[in-house]
Amino acid sequence: MTDTPPAPASDAETYVVGVDFGTLSGRAVLVRVRDGEILASAVHDYPHAVIEERLPGTGAALPPDWALQHPQDWREVLQSAVPAALAASGVDPAQVVGIATDFTACTVLPTLADGTPLAETAQWQASPHAWPKLWKHHAAQPQADRINALAHARGEKWIHRYGGKISAEWQYAKALQVLEEDPAVYAAGERWIEAADWIVWQLTGTETRNTCTAGYKGIHQDGGYPTEEYLGALNPGFADFARTRLEHPLIALGARAGSLTAEAAAWTGLPEGIAVAAGNVDAHVAAPAARAVDHGQLLAIMGTSTCHVVNGAHLADVPGICGVVDGGIIDGSYGYEAGQSAVGDIFAWWLRQGAPAEYLLEAEQTGEDLHQLLTRKITGQPVGGHGLVALDWMGGNRSTLVDAHLSGVIIGITLATRPEEIYRALLEATAYGTRTIVEALEAGGVPVTEFVVTGGLRKNPLLMQIYADVLRRPVSLAVSEQGPALGSAIHAAVAAGAHRDVRAAAAAMGRVQRHAYLPDDARADAYDALFAEYRLLHDHFGTGPDKQLHRLRAIRNAALTHNSED
Amino acid sequence: MTDTPPAPASDAETYVVGVDFGTLSGRAVLVRVRDGEILASAVHDYPHAVIEERLPGTGAALPPDWALQHPQDWREVLQSAVPAALAASGVDPAQVVGIATDFTACTVLPTLADGTPLAETAQWQASPHAWPKLWKHHAAQPQADRINALAHARGEKWIHRYGGKISAEWQYAKALQVLEEDPAVYAAGERWIEAADWIVWQLTGTETRNTCTAGYKGIHQDGGYPTEEYLGALNPGFADFARTRLEHPLIALGARAGSLTAEAAAWTGLPEGIAVAAGNVDAHVAAPAARAVDHGQLLAIMGTSTCHVVNGAHLADVPGICGVVDGGIIDGSYGYEAGQSAVGDIFAWWLRQGAPAEYLLEAEQTGEDLHQLLTRKITGQPVGGHGLVALDWMGGNRSTLVDAHLSGVIIGITLATRPEEIYRALLEATAYGTRTIVEALEAGGVPVTEFVVTGGLRKNPLLMQIYADVLRRPVSLAVSEQGPALGSAIHAAVAAGAHRDVRAAAAAMGRVQRHAYLPDDARADAYDALFAEYRLLHDHFGTGPDKQLHRLRAIRNAALTHNSED
Repeated sequence: MTDTPPAPASDAETYVVGVDFGTLSGRAVLVRVRDGEILASAVHDYPHAVIEERLPGTGAALPPDWALQHPQDWREVLQSAVPAALAASGVDPAQVVGIATDFTACTVLPTLADGTPLAETAQWQASPHAWPKLWKHHAAQPQADRINALAHARGEKWIHRYGGKISAEWQYAKALQVLEEDPAVYAAGERWIEAADWIVWQLTGTETRNTCTAGYKGIHQDGGYPTEEYLGALNPGFADFARTRLEHPLIALGARAGSLTAEAAAWTGLPEGIAVAAGNVDAHVAAPAARAVDHGQLLAIMGTSTCHVVNGAHLADVPGICGVVDGGIIDGSYGYEAGQSAVGDIFAWWLRQGAPAEYLLEAEQTGEDLHQLLTRKITGQPVGGHGLVALDWMGGNRSTLVDAHLSGVIIGITLATRPEEIYRALLEATAYGTRTIVEALEAGGVPVTEFVVTGGLRKNPLLMQIYADVLRRPVSLAVSEQGPALGSAIHAAVAAGAHRDVRAAAAAMGRVQRHAYLPDDARADAYDALFAEYRLLHDHFGTGPDKQLHRLRAIRNAALTHNSED
Repeated sequence: MTDTPPAPASDAETYVVGVDFGTLSGRAVLVRVRDGEILASAVHDYPHAVIEERLPGTGAALPPDWALQHPQDWREVLQSAVPAALAASGVDPAQVVGIATDFTACTVLPTLADGTPLAETAQWQASPHAWPKLWKHHAAQPQADRINALAHARGEKWIHRYGGKISAEWQYAKALQVLEEDPAVYAAGERWIEAADWIVWQLTGTETRNTCTAGYKGIHQDGGYPTEEYLGALNPGFADFARTRLEHPLIALGARAGSLTAEAAAWTGLPEGIAVAAGNVDAHVAAPAARAVDHGQLLAIMGTSTCHVVNGAHLADVPGICGVVDGGIIDGSYGYEAGQSAVGDIFAWWLRQGAPAEYLLEAEQTGEDLHQLLTRKITGQPVGGHGLVALDWMGGNRSTLVDAHLSGVIIGITLATRPEEIYRALLEATAYGTRTIVEALEAGGVPVTEFVVTGGLRKNPLLMQIYADVLRRPVSLAVSEQGPALGSAIHAAVAAGAHRDVRAAAAAMGRVQRHAYLPDDARADAYDALFAEYRLLHDHFGTGPDKQLHRLRAIRNAALTHNSED
């Protein structure tokens, strides 16, 4: 369906298409090259969404923590959302000069040598391990644990580029899980490819690999992948994994990966032969849309979780970040990535606990949603007035502790504590988590000169003011609602040669509201005291010798496995 | 109003009246001496309830943390609830042989030498400090802090009888506040008396003092009050406080304080001259009603808060308990008291945070209240299955940390945590708090041989089973709904000479359901592991060197005092 009314087009203009492949749907935007104006946008929901319970076709039950997707759902975005956006724009297809895509990551799949997903072959479609593993497939933790232990034991230099830990979500853990749980599928998978690159293959007919996913998810560092010796020590059958399944020249973000094939032109309604840009990741691609491309401009993509990306001039190993990749965000700069596993998800968790009946009634009368109601009720309270500090680890801690087995903590509760006070304490906790990351970057030698926010949470004024006060920095806001899709369009324009490079394209096509929120000195002072309390709590539960939250997680898991009470 | 239908009475029987003065109302019961059967019960709500905002009459605003009551409200219970219960019972007043009362404590007031409350004199009625201070008047903390510091500095022996701390709620802190904030009122108050003793004075026309309140609230130990030297060091004007305002022979619980005056007989409709028992406290008086009178039988009075009382054969200074008093519960035994500031209040706090809309709908359909709904939803979960541990300090910690500035903590929260899981974690937290007290008593030389529960929370089967499992002990339940009022009636029977002593009267008139809940070994084992986690958390936040919860409280108080944001 389309959600933007047609806008008048001029014959002199050129246009590009950006396509953002999310977790549940894909969105296409049609964008004017000259100034980044989005003329139309269309969304296609994936019919199979996230496959977590049963495999399509056979209906076989999937084990816990699995998350798969269907490649045909992705293709349908090209066949449905792109033509819809094009039609809605009123633009003559002949004026479209390029297309680019971005994808969730690490979403990865085994294919034949020609790019055919194993999941779409008759021989392998009934094998769960043949299917694309979505980023949030979390069943490869045992493999990730071994990957990390061995890397540290062998002193692999690259492990420090990832804050000391390779995630179970990334390419190696997932591939090793396939090898060890279904060797026949592993053997049949001639290529192991990020969906970000696979979708470009669908558009160009040619395999390419981009620097971003190769670096952040594929452990490609200093010109190469981990050695055969290392991989073989993980599992002898895994020794040639990188050489046989991954190895391929990398291309820079914004580079032209190839030209739109006749088949893909037919799907999309776009002209055959136009530029197709290198694959990209939904978070990183959003930086130019918010003009956050210079060294030190940190972009926080804030939604259910937060991803932080920032470019630096130099290579630094920052403990606890997700990764640093040469050209990982912008070609020619070192791209640093960090993250918070849950942010908006934490606020939603609190609202899922419910609200007092009188609040529900009040919200009905005022027409506010519960977020708005709680925000209004708490806005006037002085900093620290609730007496609470929380740890924002309800979804674990991605940066800088890199520990999925941590959990949330709230202290300072009294009988007088009100729902809006806990709500605010949770908003603040995520700001403290962001400050912890910003301080780690700066301490590690990556200056942060500006804090820019994109994503849905930038529309929460209380949250943004809290971030400004907690960080004691101005908060700038991306203007576009469609950060990733616009970012892809910017890369398409660069691939098509319409702008010199991504920084130039960002200057022309990106939009940012600089310093939309300014810190208040008195509040910042008050938050300094509370942040000190957060850090004490953080260190006690996160880095102290007593791993209490780990034990509670183990007790919980054991209890639920036995499930024997009452 | 009466809430019990009349029951047939026999001419051969004798009866007693018990009157329980609570925080918001007073309840009278008419009880058969032979077997403790409650024939009728009536309640009178205090018209002035708790006076926290404005003084009656002048309407003068009261400072924060004040809580007063009106003596006339108490008299009205005698004038209203007692005759109502008598009438509802159908009993011939001539068959009533005694009356006894129990009161909240420390609720205390200044009077003239004849017992007239200063608050009821024309000269002083406009002075807030002339009014009775309810137990939860919390504005004397600075005085309490000095009382404690000086007691420790001087090595006063009695301080150890109170777990090392005298509460701001008790007689000395409140009296010292009067002296220091309104010396004229202090000077005019010829007597400083517990409401528990004042109400007996109203019934008998004679001043008496009981061992229970003198011991627990008046620091009467080893035959005397604190010395003039100590009191004078607190404030020179306070040196003669105990000698002039408190000193009076003490009488044992169950002793006959005097005879009902003609005036009180007219108020109540009872015969002039019948026995009036010594004053008593609402918690302690409930022990015989539950037959929890032998050494080691701990009675937990569980409602919004929990009070624990247990008799011991020997004197032991147990760190962190509220007090040990010779004859404080039963004449001839050492009575130990401990407490948890908030129990049912914590569960109510959680429900005040609200519930999901679908839960509210479900409760409406099933007719359950929210407690029942959450209980049903969580009952089947194995111990530890929620992964949570909480500290039950939302109302501070009365025993064994004796620290009102602590606050609640919840750890182990994930995005999957549900409202009923936090609810259960809070139930469990209060059980861990009780286990901490029981273990402190036993470690201090006071054996606990049986755990008996009275009060409203005994009707919560999940809570009671959790207590049995966490304590690894059977839980016995008091049968009567009216524990304190029935306990008063038992004391009335003893004062009237109808039973030999309180233990004999308890055997005849008290009722208990022995071992109503039994511990399950597997669950008790699982709770041992969780209790170990609770203790770690307890020690970190409660006794560790970093007083983080105190700092948060101070930050909160400072923030709310300045109240300057936004």
